[in-house]
Amino acid sequence: MSTSRIDDVLAHIDAHLDSARGRWFELLRIPSISAQGLTETSPHRADCLRAASHMRDLLAGMGFAARLSETRGLPGVIATHHKAGPDAPTVLYYGHYDVQPADPLDLWHSDPFDPQLVDHPEGPRVVARGAVDDKGQVMMVLEAVRAWLDVTGGLPVNLTVLLEGEEECGSPSLAAMLEAERDALKADFVLVADTNMWDRQTPAITTSLRGLAAVEVRISGPDRDLHSGLFGGPALNPIRALTRILGDLFDADGRIRIPGFYDGILDIPADVLASWRATGFDEAAWLGGIGLARASGERGFSVLEQNWARPTAEINGIFGGYQGEGTKTVIPAEAGAKLTFRLVPGQDPAKVVEGFKEFVNARLLPDAKARFEVHGASAGLVVPVDLPFVRAARAALEQEFGRKPVLAGCGASIPVVEAFERQLGLKTLLVGFGLDDDCIHSPNEKFEMRCFHRGMRAEARMLAAFAG
Amino acid sequence: MSTSRIDDVLAHIDAHLDSARGRWFELLRIPSISAQGLTETSPHRADCLRAASHMRDLLAGMGFAARLSETRGLPGVIATHHKAGPDAPTVLYYGHYDVQPADPLDLWHSDPFDPQLVDHPEGPRVVARGAVDDKGQVMMVLEAVRAWLDVTGGLPVNLTVLLEGEEECGSPSLAAMLEAERDALKADFVLVADTNMWDRQTPAITTSLRGLAAVEVRISGPDRDLHSGLFGGPALNPIRALTRILGDLFDADGRIRIPGFYDGILDIPADVLASWRATGFDEAAWLGGIGLARASGERGFSVLEQNWARPTAEINGIFGGYQGEGTKTVIPAEAGAKLTFRLVPGQDPAKVVEGFKEFVNARLLPDAKARFEVHGASAGLVVPVDLPFVRAARAALEQEFGRKPVLAGCGASIPVVEAFERQLGLKTLLVGFGLDDDCIHSPNEKFEMRCFHRGMRAEARMLAAFAG
Repeated sequence: MSTSRIDDVLAHIDAHLDSARGRWFELLRIPSISAQGLTETSPHRADCLRAASHMRDLLAGMGFAARLSETRGLPGVIATHHKAGPDAPTVLYYGHYDVQPADPLDLWHSDPFDPQLVDHPEGPRVVARGAVDDKGQVMMVLEAVRAWLDVTGGLPVNLTVLLEGEEECGSPSLAAMLEAERDALKADFVLVADTNMWDRQTPAITTSLRGLAAVEVRISGPDRDLHSGLFGGPALNPIRALTRILGDLFDADGRIRIPGFYDGILDIPADVLASWRATGFDEAAWLGGIGLARASGERGFSVLEQNWARPTAEINGIFGGYQGEGTKTVIPAEAGAKLTFRLVPGQDPAKVVEGFKEFVNARLLPDAKARFEVHGASAGLVVPVDLPFVRAARAALEQEFGRKPVLAGCGASIPVVEAFERQLGLKTLLVGFGLDDDCIHSPNEKFEMRCFHRGMRAEARMLAAFAG
Repeated sequence: MSTSRIDDVLAHIDAHLDSARGRWFELLRIPSISAQGLTETSPHRADCLRAASHMRDLLAGMGFAARLSETRGLPGVIATHHKAGPDAPTVLYYGHYDVQPADPLDLWHSDPFDPQLVDHPEGPRVVARGAVDDKGQVMMVLEAVRAWLDVTGGLPVNLTVLLEGEEECGSPSLAAMLEAERDALKADFVLVADTNMWDRQTPAITTSLRGLAAVEVRISGPDRDLHSGLFGGPALNPIRALTRILGDLFDADGRIRIPGFYDGILDIPADVLASWRATGFDEAAWLGGIGLARASGERGFSVLEQNWARPTAEINGIFGGYQGEGTKTVIPAEAGAKLTFRLVPGQDPAKVVEGFKEFVNARLLPDAKARFEVHGASAGLVVPVDLPFVRAARAALEQEFGRKPVLAGCGASIPVVEAFERQLGLKTLLVGFGLDDDCIHSPNEKFEMRCFHRGMRAEARMLAAFAG
C-alpha cells in the first residue's frame, strides 16, 4: 500500500463529509427499535426490517454481495467484498442496525428520529437516537470503506460485514446465526466499532473485557414466616444467616474469600500496564463523579486495575422479610441475594460458581439451607496487544491522532465478543470513536462530527494497515 | 370470704352454662371488625359502635355504672361496680370488644359471625371470629362477675371494666383515653384475660413480656445506581457495606455484639426459672413445629429462656438493588434493613438504639454513610411473682386446676400492658384461658367450652382471692 493511495483516500473522505453525513442521516431516520417483546405487528418491527433492507441495499450499491440472514427474531445483514486476493487478510466487521428505545421522549430537545446537526462550543454534533450507538459508528466504518472503493476501486482487505438487529435487546438470535453462518463468517479477526475514545484527542483500543458469572442464592430456615416476638431468639432467622455469609465475602484488604477465586489469573502485560499508567487517569475525579472518595476494590491496585483487570464479587440485589413502610415483626422463612462476579482472563467461570457455593455452604448456620440458581457464566477476554492486527491498528491510530492509543480495559462484558471467541474462535479488535458523554441509551444521544470524521480517517488507515 | 359463698358461686356457674353461652353468642354475632382505615361510613364501624353499646348495656344490666368513652376512633366502654368498700382492692379489668377481619372467608367451615357449638374429640368448642380473642375471654370474666352478683348481690372487689375497641388495629386511641380517663381508671392493678393456658390441664400466669425497639438503617454509597461492570471494583457497593455490618451482629455463641446491649439485665427469679423447668417443655417438638432442629439463640440458655428472658436482635427485612427475575448488573446507591430488638427488664431501650447506631457507624466502609429511623422503643416488663395479687391468683388457679400455674414468660410485647405501666403506673396480671391451637387471627377461631367453663370458675375464685 503506497502512502499516496491512503493520502488520496483521506483527501476523499475530507472532501465528501457532507454526503457521508447525508447517508448517515438516512439510516438515523428509521426508528429501528428492537425492544424485547417486539410483536409481529409492532410498527418498530417493520422499521427494523426496513433498516435491515436499507443496509443490505446500501452495501449492495457499494459492490458487496449482500443479503439478509433470517433468524427467529430480526434478520442480520451479511455482505462480503472479497476481492483483495488470497494473501490479504479477511476482516469480519460487526455492527448493529438496531437502537435503544427513545423514552423518555419529553427530555429530548428534538425528535430522536429526525437527526439534527447542532452547533456546540466543542464543535458540531449530530443528535439522534443511534447517532453513535451504533448507526453512527457503522456508517463511519462503511464510509471509510466507500472512500477506498471510490478512490481505488477496491479494498486493501477481504471484508465481511455482519450487522445484527437485536444487539440492544440481548442478542437472542446471535448464537444461532453465528452457528448457521459459520462458513460465511470465516475471517482472521473481528473488527468492532462500538466503544469509546479515551478522550477527544486520544484514541483507544479495548484489549480486555471482564467475563460474568451470575448466581442467586436463597437461604431458608423455618418452614414458614414467624412472629419475631413469639419465636425470636430460638428460631433461626435466614436474614441473619445470609448476612453472616455475605458479610464474610471480603477480607480487610478487599480481597474475595471464595476458595480458588484468584486461581489462574494472568498478569497484566507490562506494556498494557504502562499504557494505563501513561493515561494520567484522574482517580479522584472519577470517584468524585459518582459521589465517592475512596476506591473500594483490592488494596494495592489502582482504580483502573480494579475496574479493568481484577475480578469482583458484587451483590446486585438482596431481599428478605418486610420491606414496606414502618416495621413488621416477622422472621421470614427465606432470604436471598443476587450476585455477579466479573471475571478476568485465567479465571474459570464454572470454578468460581462452585467456589461460591462452597463458600456459602461452609458458613451456613445450623438449620439453614442454601439453594443456588446460576444465571450464566462467561470468561474474561483479553486481546493480546502484539497480535499483528492489533499492532497494525495501534500504528494506524497513532498516525491519525499523533499520539499512541490507550490500550484500555473494560470492566463490563460485551457478550458478542465472547460469542465470536467461543463460537468462531475469533479474536476481536475493539476500536471505537464515541465519547463517554455521548449519552448512549439516554435522551439527546450525540456523536460529534469531529469524532465521526477522525473515525472515518482512522478506519481508512486501519484497513490499509491490516493489509500489512 | 367464706368457702361456702365461693362454692355457691361455682355451683351457679356450673348450673347456668347454657345461658352464659347464649350471651357470649350474642356478642359474637356482631361483626365488630376494627381494621385500620375504618371510614365513617364503613358497615364495620357501625358494627363496632353496636358492640360497644351492647357491652355498655350488658354491664349496666348487671348493675354497673356504664358509659362509652369517646375517642378519635372507636369508643371505649368504662363500667364501675365499686361497692366492696374502701378496704377491698380495686381491680381494673381490661378487655377488647373488637375482632380481627375474618378473611380468607373461604377457609372457614361456618360463617365467622354465626357462632357454632361444634363437637370434637377434645370436647365441645365454640367456633367464631372472636370466639376466644377477646370476646370469649371477656364474657368468661363478666359471667364470673355475674355469678357473684347473682348469688351474693355484690362483688368481693371494687371492679372497673375497661373494654377497648381498637386493640386489633394497634390501639391508636388508647394512650389518649388512658390519659383522659386517668381518674376513672384508678385501681390497684390491671387484670387481663387475653393470653393462653400452658396446656388443657395447666393454667398459666404471664409474668414477663419482652419490650421492643425498632430501627431501620439505610447505608448509602455512590450518588446514583451504577453499572456493576463499568464501575464494579473501585465503586463501593452499599449492600456489601450493609452485609459486612449485619454479618458481624452476632458472635459465635449467638450473643449480640452491640456495645452495652446486655447491660442491666435482671436475673430471672429462681422460682420463675424453677417453674419453667418444671413444665417439661419439649424443645425438640417446639423447634420441629417450625421446621427447625436447633435453637439459634444464645448458647447456654434453654429455648424458653431464649424466647422469654433473653433479648434478641432480629433483622425483619433487608433490601437493596435488584429483586426481580433473573439478573441485573447494578450497584445500588443504597441498601437497608429493618431490625427489631426484643428487650428484657433492665435494658434501656434508648441505650440499645444508641448502641446499635454506634455498632453500625464503627463498621462503615469508607464512603458509606448510615441513616437511621427509629420506629419506637418500649422496655421489657416483669410482674413480680410475689406481689399480693399475683400470689392470690396463683393460689386460686391451683385450687381450681389442682396444679400450680406455670409462671410463663412471653417473647412478644403487649403494648397495652406497657401503656398501663407507663401511663397509669399499674402492674398487670395476665391470666388467660386460651390454647395455643385456638387459631386466633386465623380461620375457624375456636374457644373450647372446657376452657371457657374452667376459666369462669377460675375468674370467680380469683375475684375472691384478690379480696384476701
